[in-house]
Amino acid sequence: MKLTDIIGYLAAFGTTISFLPQAVKTIQTKNTEGISLAMYAIFTLGTLLWLIYGIMSASWPVAAANAVTFIFASTILIYKVRYK
Amino acid sequence: MKLTDIIGYLAAFGTTISFLPQAVKTIQTKNTEGISLAMYAIFTLGTLLWLIYGIMSASWPVAAANAVTFIFASTILIYKVRYK
Repeated sequence: MKLTDIIGYLAAFGTTISFLPQAVKTIQTKNTEGISLAMYAIFTLGTLLWLIYGIMSASWPVAAANAVTFIFASTILIYKVRYK
Repeated sequence: MKLTDIIGYLAAFGTTISFLPQAVKTIQTKNTEGISLAMYAIFTLGTLLWLIYGIMSASWPVAAANAVTFIFASTILIYKVRYK
């Protein structure tokens, strides 16, 4: 594997998995005061569009990474709406 | 432009710009209690790796989008560290 590809996979892994600790923290504390509703509304929609793009263009790494991120982001969004 | 490309650009715009309202909110309120340090540490590093990947593979939309996201994410990270 080329160095460029390794960096790309590390980047995809990092930006995907990063939302896990935020989702865990939000579920555990229900503290969403400092979290921006606008961010998670736009970001969740964005990851859904990335998922559609990934499927339509058969870019499976893009589709897979964004399916995971969509689950984390929508969870945080639901908590933000419920416990604002 | 193909529909798939339009969806891809909308997705890129959405996931990039979504961090702006979070950065603005964090700067204005300095309330970072509900924000995960682990998320922003990993995410900021991830966008930096995406930026390097974009430059190395001459994927300029990837490089440009992640340069912008890196600025927003690192700003939120700095506030999280300063006002935890």
